Amino acid sequence: MKRIGIIGATGYSGIELIRILLQHPEINIHSLYSSSAEGKSLTDYFPHLQGADLPALKGIQPEEIAQENDLVFLATPAGVSAEITPALIKEGVKVIDLSGDLRLHSPQAYKEWYKKSPAAESVLQQAVYGLPEWNKSKLREASVVANPGCYPTATLLALLPILQTEWIKPDSIIVDAKSGVSGAGRGASLGVHFSELNDSFHAYKVGQHQHTPEIEQEILHMTKKEITIQFTPHLVPMTRGILATSYVSLDKSKDVAHIVESLQELYENAYQHAPFVRVRPFGSYPRTKEVLGTNYCDVALHLDERTGRIVILSVIDNMVKGAAGQAVQNMNLLFGFEETLGLPVHALYP
Amino acid sequence: MKRIGIIGATGYSGIELIRILLQHPEINIHSLYSSSAEGKSLTDYFPHLQGADLPALKGIQPEEIAQENDLVFLATPAGVSAEITPALIKEGVKVIDLSGDLRLHSPQAYKEWYKKSPAAESVLQQAVYGLPEWNKSKLREASVVANPGCYPTATLLALLPILQTEWIKPDSIIVDAKSGVSGAGRGASLGVHFSELNDSFHAYKVGQHQHTPEIEQEILHMTKKEITIQFTPHLVPMTRGILATSYVSLDKSKDVAHIVESLQELYENAYQHAPFVRVRPFGSYPRTKEVLGTNYCDVALHLDERTGRIVILSVIDNMVKGAAGQAVQNMNLLFGFEETLGLPVHALYP
Amino acid sequence: MKRIGIIGATGYSGIELIRILLQHPEINIHSLYSSSAEGKSLTDYFPHLQGADLPALKGIQPEEIAQENDLVFLATPAGVSAEITPALIKEGVKVIDLSGDLRLHSPQAYKEWYKKSPAAESVLQQAVYGLPEWNKSKLREASVVANPGCYPTATLLALLPILQTEWIKPDSIIVDAKSGVSGAGRGASLGVHFSELNDSFHAYKVGQHQHTPEIEQEILHMTKKEITIQFTPHLVPMTRGILATSYVSLDKSKDVAHIVESLQELYENAYQHAPFVRVRPFGSYPRTKEVLGTNYCDVALHLDERTGRIVILSVIDNMVKGAAGQAVQNMNLLFGFEETLGLPVHALYP
Amino acid sequence: MKRIGIIGATGYSGIELIRILLQHPEINIHSLYSSSAEGKSLTDYFPHLQGADLPALKGIQPEEIAQENDLVFLATPAGVSAEITPALIKEGVKVIDLSGDLRLHSPQAYKEWYKKSPAAESVLQQAVYGLPEWNKSKLREASVVANPGCYPTATLLALLPILQTEWIKPDSIIVDAKSGVSGAGRGASLGVHFSELNDSFHAYKVGQHQHTPEIEQEILHMTKKEITIQFTPHLVPMTRGILATSYVSLDKSKDVAHIVESLQELYENAYQHAPFVRVRPFGSYPRTKEVLGTNYCDVALHLDERTGRIVILSVIDNMVKGAAGQAVQNMNLLFGFEETLGLPVHALYP
Repeated sequence: MKRIGIIGATGYSGIELIRILLQHPEINIHSLYSSSAEGKSLTDYFPHLQGADLPALKGIQPEEIAQENDLVFLATPAGVSAEITPALIKEGVKVIDLSGDLRLHSPQAYKEWYKKSPAAESVLQQAVYGLPEWNKSKLREASVVANPGCYPTATLLALLPILQTEWIKPDSIIVDAKSGVSGAGRGASLGVHFSELNDSFHAYKVGQHQHTPEIEQEILHMTKKEITIQFTPHLVPMTRGILATSYVSLDKSKDVAHIVESLQELYENAYQHAPFVRVRPFGSYPRTKEVLGTNYCDVALHLDERTGRIVILSVIDNMVKGAAGQAVQNMNLLFGFEETLGLPVHALYP
Repeated sequence: MKRIGIIGATGYSGIELIRILLQHPEINIHSLYSSSAEGKSLTDYFPHLQGADLPALKGIQPEEIAQENDLVFLATPAGVSAEITPALIKEGVKVIDLSGDLRLHSPQAYKEWYKKSPAAESVLQQAVYGLPEWNKSKLREASVVANPGCYPTATLLALLPILQTEWIKPDSIIVDAKSGVSGAGRGASLGVHFSELNDSFHAYKVGQHQHTPEIEQEILHMTKKEITIQFTPHLVPMTRGILATSYVSLDKSKDVAHIVESLQELYENAYQHAPFVRVRPFGSYPRTKEVLGTNYCDVALHLDERTGRIVILSVIDNMVKGAAGQAVQNMNLLFGFEETLGLPVHALYP
Repeated sequence: MKRIGIIGATGYSGIELIRILLQHPEINIHSLYSSSAEGKSLTDYFPHLQGADLPALKGIQPEEIAQENDLVFLATPAGVSAEITPALIKEGVKVIDLSGDLRLHSPQAYKEWYKKSPAAESVLQQAVYGLPEWNKSKLREASVVANPGCYPTATLLALLPILQTEWIKPDSIIVDAKSGVSGAGRGASLGVHFSELNDSFHAYKVGQHQHTPEIEQEILHMTKKEITIQFTPHLVPMTRGILATSYVSLDKSKDVAHIVESLQELYENAYQHAPFVRVRPFGSYPRTKEVLGTNYCDVALHLDERTGRIVILSVIDNMVKGAAGQAVQNMNLLFGFEETLGLPVHALYP
Repeated sequence: MKRIGIIGATGYSGIELIRILLQHPEINIHSLYSSSAEGKSLTDYFPHLQGADLPALKGIQPEEIAQENDLVFLATPAGVSAEITPALIKEGVKVIDLSGDLRLHSPQAYKEWYKKSPAAESVLQQAVYGLPEWNKSKLREASVVANPGCYPTATLLALLPILQTEWIKPDSIIVDAKSGVSGAGRGASLGVHFSELNDSFHAYKVGQHQHTPEIEQEILHMTKKEITIQFTPHLVPMTRGILATSYVSLDKSKDVAHIVESLQELYENAYQHAPFVRVRPFGSYPRTKEVLGTNYCDVALHLDERTGRIVILSVIDNMVKGAAGQAVQNMNLLFGFEETLGLPVHALYP
């Protein structure tokens, strides 16, 4: 049994890690850390955990953390892991960071998009991007993982297969994404006030969301193509779930008839060994509810012959495949466990 | 006082017409018609109308309808007004049709997108497209109005000013639209089942929605440009409201610096005499809730210099500016009333 | 035209007062006051007010307030009006207080249930309880009005007619009430966090809600009966609306057959001159949505012969009849206007 | 491995049984039956099951069903199992019926409350009421189980401990219950139309819900007290979850001080061996979300000394402890498995 610690256990990503890890057969949740809740019990924050046998919350002390655990998850706000990861690495504990701090290789890009001080460049270079479907061999050897953002997960899994081909116009990519509110975390603000959001819909951060450079970086990394994407996030009056609608224009000089035939196959082949990506039937309409509580990303392809565009729909549960579930999937790879071990695959429906 | 009839009074558009017309100072609701509810009272269907002094429901007989009313609204499902409008016209009553039957000039296009028999070509030619902001003088003379669809209203008001310029690439237009469920009407089906939709999100009819040719036709009509748009509708777990996110690529050969300066002004000028279009501050994020219950369309402009695209956000209440409110706005023009007379402008917030 | 001021204009009750007063033909909104937002514009807080011609926000200075206005509404949190009302009264301006500060005649009871310092006893004695259906003549003469709480409005209108009879057991009254989230106001907290409330349901303050003594006081005042009620509030994942389910046991020594016949008539008589109370057909099920945005309270009676209990269902929009609408109804009485003047009666449905 | 069949696999209870049974280590889902969907695949109805290895749907033939399975669940509408259970019993297969058909011992009561023909009296006598916390020993020997209704589960677990004492007035019991919409099943109707229910709240079947006699029967059976309860169901705009607010008056002749001290202990003792009932801290407020997806019933006690009443709050997930989860708990008892085997206990939060 591996000993696991969670830093930032009182946030939504922390609590979702706990839900998933409590069902994992090969680990035990050894320690929970929180800067604000030292000495308290998690049930003070989450009464539904009554009966779960969990350790009390402790303050954050890197040396102790490293000694007590084989691996720690950082489920902390932006800025925290940039600060404490160096000490953790030094002490030799494996780290999976769910925040955005270790995802961008360029400290300059981090500063620009996150408006915060970046992590040390040496740490950034060590961090492996934790999208298992496209980075599995590196993850098996990793000791520091930058767990992908929720939007990048839904977007990259939708786009990477088609972006590897020569069928498309690289400057045409638009991703119109819609997310449930849990992605904004547990902190109280007018931005997550029920009466402001319920029965309403709005866009935010048009052209300015910090997940944009992450998507572009990984597209470059995985496909060797330098592509600028248009990314627009929206807030849906629901708790969990992301649907990304991705638009890609076909290159008119290519043989479109050929593409039509090959598109579905392209995706099915790309994900034939990916247990958590389900390529849905061509032309279908996945719903966020259909992956609720699971680690799946469901992808469906549409071709609009009238406009010459491919439209790709992808759905995830932002708390699972978009955060805690993917982190556990990465943990499985780091520890050499079966990739699917302990991960939820049965959606709560309806 | 003008005498008004409503055909299809037991549907959501019918009931919304009644809400608005009960507050209109210059008309009275003289007759209500329903093919399925003859002899019944509207309060059998809508108990909240207890106390409103409304006539009983009558069967649909065109001659009688024409004699009894100065104007009739058709708030009927697709296919109905194609059938009964000719008789109504012949009898000389003014008609405002809220369905899609009279919107497309081409019977062939109607057949293709609606999968139904089109109205007689003579009727289609007589029908004036009821988007007052772009068609006011014709509407003042009209006797048959094709009231715009909900998506086309939000889309056209967002796109027409920029499409009149030479700044953009015509083949780049993508409209990613999101609607509340009331747009699907009052008929019961699995597609509007609470447990299927609540706390979930999905796209539908990618590249196949019947409002697509309507948008393209009116763009051609208003701007003389033949443009093929990419249109994707989505269903939001909320009752009312549409947000359309429209993407337009700038023509790189044009002077972008100039465009940046002029964009907001372009829209403010375009709508300076449009009482129901509010151009919101540059870079803002309108919410559907902010127009709830009102006849407003709020439009906000964003420019992404990184990608060279304009992103336009537009919101309406699909039942008001997207249906019954716009129909009453058209009625005001037909009767020579003040355009804003009796129309709701105060959103229910929160 | 009467000049009206609103203190606390940036809260939900304030903004709802503005929605209603903008449609009132005999007043103008002369001044808006806010302790926290002096010098700002309301559109900074509520962008949907763009285009409404409203004064800028001013700081709270009682003398100035009294000079500038014929009447002021206090839409402030508990504790504020206890402090500033004395000065306003002294300056001779009429006051309608939407907070709970002036409702309880007993300073001791206020202290106990609100955990705050009560208003001066002289002010409490001067304040008239603003439930027009049961207190109309006093309200016509009033200069200070304590506007009822949302729960007491729904509860008292449901219970008072039956409590005036001798048919019931006085110690049997249970009120199980359910409210939308807007009642909690616009302040951000975990208690109104979307992800915590959405798709979930819970009770709160069992036996401890501060509206309980208000209900009991007014029952005593209106029926001369000292009755202790059981009151339980719950939070519904919706924005607006209250439904109160009230249980009353019949006195078995009375002639129940007679009661059955007379019950509906009792209520219809009680409210025959009350334009905003609709007694719905016996045995019907009013929905909160059916009064959305209106000043109605809809009441429906059920008799369970098996158990010997009357079950009364009453619904209001907590922001309208439960707050701002009732306040304007009271204003109409104070100014000698028609009681219904300018008040919304057409529900937004669906 | 036991072979399990599900009759009525395309409804919500059926699909929830499948979610739970797919995670059960000691059974396999051998056969799925549906009267309307013979020959089809479950993924035609529930695309989210793509990848689950499930048998095709078959028509309902009792003999075959009995031969193929060790136990069958009936997740069928009222009226079906009354018809087919006799044949299943005759063939010797164990039956757990999730419908209401086998719950009431009295055919006359069934007819009266369900307005349908009752099952044969011999079948009714054989059926054991499947509330494991109160009927465990009988369930271990049972071959036919009447799985409790959702409301009775939440109600009985809340009331039975206190009803076993002599502290209370038996004629005082009121249960005000609130349910999510999934309880109404997957059939489309205006009653479950999103636009009719969303952001609204209403009561239904006051004094007439068919779960009332079931609750009274089991109270009589478990406590030997003939008690008439007041039961009122309400519909909450959420998908899953029930909260029951139960009111019990204390007998004034009893020593109330003693009760206060003993109440919490009474419940903790009553459920000390019940793995799925969590007695929450005295005076707390369980939320339906806190048991989402789990087989828990959480119960919290409140004492209102002012009124002399105990108020009990109980929450369940109506699809799990209120239907499929409890059915699997019963299956575990029938087969002699550990009671908790394979049952979900980790809530999806938020």
